[in-house]
Amino acid sequence: MKEPLKNQTIGFVGLGQMGYPIARTLVQAGFPVRVFDVREERIAPLVALGAIPAACLAEVVEPGGVVISMVPGDTELCQIALNDPGIVRQLGPGGLHLSLSTISPDVVLSLTKYYATQGVALVAATVSGRPEAAATRQLSVYVSGNAAAKDHARPILETIGSTLYDLGPAVESAVVMKLAANYLILAALVAMGSAATFVERHGLERELFLRAMRESVLFQGSAVYAGYGRMIGALDYSDENFSTALGLKDASLIVHEAERLGLKLPVAQQAYDALLAAQAAGHGKQSWAVLAEYAEKILEDHPQRNQ
Amino acid sequence: MKEPLKNQTIGFVGLGQMGYPIARTLVQAGFPVRVFDVREERIAPLVALGAIPAACLAEVVEPGGVVISMVPGDTELCQIALNDPGIVRQLGPGGLHLSLSTISPDVVLSLTKYYATQGVALVAATVSGRPEAAATRQLSVYVSGNAAAKDHARPILETIGSTLYDLGPAVESAVVMKLAANYLILAALVAMGSAATFVERHGLERELFLRAMRESVLFQGSAVYAGYGRMIGALDYSDENFSTALGLKDASLIVHEAERLGLKLPVAQQAYDALLAAQAAGHGKQSWAVLAEYAEKILEDHPQRNQ
Repeated sequence: MKEPLKNQTIGFVGLGQMGYPIARTLVQAGFPVRVFDVREERIAPLVALGAIPAACLAEVVEPGGVVISMVPGDTELCQIALNDPGIVRQLGPGGLHLSLSTISPDVVLSLTKYYATQGVALVAATVSGRPEAAATRQLSVYVSGNAAAKDHARPILETIGSTLYDLGPAVESAVVMKLAANYLILAALVAMGSAATFVERHGLERELFLRAMRESVLFQGSAVYAGYGRMIGALDYSDENFSTALGLKDASLIVHEAERLGLKLPVAQQAYDALLAAQAAGHGKQSWAVLAEYAEKILEDHPQRNQ
Repeated sequence: MKEPLKNQTIGFVGLGQMGYPIARTLVQAGFPVRVFDVREERIAPLVALGAIPAACLAEVVEPGGVVISMVPGDTELCQIALNDPGIVRQLGPGGLHLSLSTISPDVVLSLTKYYATQGVALVAATVSGRPEAAATRQLSVYVSGNAAAKDHARPILETIGSTLYDLGPAVESAVVMKLAANYLILAALVAMGSAATFVERHGLERELFLRAMRESVLFQGSAVYAGYGRMIGALDYSDENFSTALGLKDASLIVHEAERLGLKLPVAQQAYDALLAAQAAGHGKQSWAVLAEYAEKILEDHPQRNQ
C-alpha cells in the first residue's frame, strides 16, 4: 500500500491557463504541491496560497513520487519527460507521472512503454472544460492506464474535476477522448461561423441569430455555444483562454490521427486550415474561435474543393 | 383596430408532430380554433379538448379571418394557399395567414407578394424545438413580415412559445433563421457521428463518449447533444418526431439557399448526401439523426472528395 497521497508532496509542472487553476485547486484542497513553470511569475501566487516553489524541473520531482504535468503538447511533454534531467529518470522505480496534456495517442503509448522499462507508471488524464470550469471544479476528467497507478492517482483526479470517467487500461484512451471532444468543438465553431455568414447574407444580425441559438432549447446551457457563440456574434476573439496556437496543435493531432485511422474528417481539415489562416493573419494568441471567420475564407481560396 | 383574437375563430391546418401540440396549446389557452388535417384521426383528440372540427380546407377559413398552417414544405404550402379552394382566395381582404412551416425564403417572399395583391397578409413564423418543447411551450418563435400583421398575430405567437424574436419586416427572415438553426443541428449530427466513429476505432464505446459529452460543461443542457446524442450512442433511430424525410427537405433548402448565395457549406452538402443515403436505405421515417451513420459512408463512396 502506497503512502496516502495527502502526506506526499506532489510535483506540478506547467502553470498555464488550465494548469494554474488545477494546481490551485490541489493546493486549496490541502495537498502539499511543489510547483514549477518556465514563467516564474506563474509560481508566486500559488506559493502565496501554500504551494512550495521549485526553481527548476529537477526540484519538482521526488524519487518514487508523483508528478503532474500540464504542458501544451507532444514536444514539451517529451522534453520534460525524457531530457536530462527528465521526469522519468528522476522519478525512478515506483514513481508516477500523471500527464494531463492533450497529445498524440501514439506518443502517450510510446512514452508509457518506455516508462515501464524504468519502473515508472504513466497515467494519462485529460480534462474537458475551460479555465472557468477548472477554477470551479466543474471539469470532466477522463483517465486511462494501469489500474494500480490510476488508483494511486484517484484522490488527485477526484479533486480537480466534478466527474471522473475511467476509460480502462489502454493509456491512450484519455487523449483519444479529448481529441474527439475537441473535434466536436471545432465542428461547432465552423458551423456557427458558417451559419452567421448565412444569416448575414440575408440581412440578419449574426449576434441576434447566435443569441437566439444559445437561448433556445436546442443549445441552451452548452458552454461551447454560449461562450464561443458570444465571441463569434461579437467578432471579438480577444479571449486568450484557449488560443489559436493551441487549437492548431489539437486540430493537427485530430487530422493526423484521422489520417492514421483512414477516417475522413473533412471538418477537421477545414478547421485546421482555418486556424492556420488565422494564425498567419496574426491571430495566434486570440481565441481559437476566430477560426469561425476563416472557415469560409479558406474554402473561397480553394475553389477546386467544391467543383 | 382588429377584433381581439380571443373572440375570433382561428383556422389551423396541419396537425403533424409539431402542428398538433401547437394547436393543442392554443385550444387549451382558450382560443376558438377550427382544426383540419388530411389525416382525420389527428382531429378528434383536439375536438375532445374543445376545438371545432373542419371536414375540409374550405371549412377552416373565415373571410377576413386568421389561418395558421404547419405543413411540411413548399409544395404543401403552395397547394393549400393557391389551389382552388385555397387559403388566399378564401381569406380575402383583411385576412391573415400565419405560416409556421420551414420553406424556401424565395417561396415565402413570392407568396407574400401575391397575397398583397389580394389584400391578404402573410406572416412567416418558425419555431425551434422538438415536439416535447412544443407541448411544454418551450419553443423559440421567430417571426417576420408586415408590422401590423405581426401585431395582429402576436397573441398567438406569444402563446405557442417561450421566447419570441421579431426579425423585422423582411418576410423571409423567419425561415432563414430556421434554416440556419437546422444547419447547426445538421453539423452537430455529422460531428457526433464522426466523433463516435473516431473513438470506436480506438476501442472506446461510442455511448460512453456521447454520454460524457452531454454530461460535460461543453454541451450540458443542449437538447441537440442530449436527445440526438442518445440516439447516435445507442444506434437507435426509431424516434419519428423529426424524420429523415423532413430532414432531407430542410437540408435540400439549406443547400439550395447556400448555392443561391454563393456560400460554400460543405457540411450541409455532406448532411444532405447522408440523409439521401439513409432514405435510400429505408430509413425515411426514422429520426434524421440516422444521418450520423451515413456521414462517413458517403465520403467513402466518393473518394475523389478527399484527394
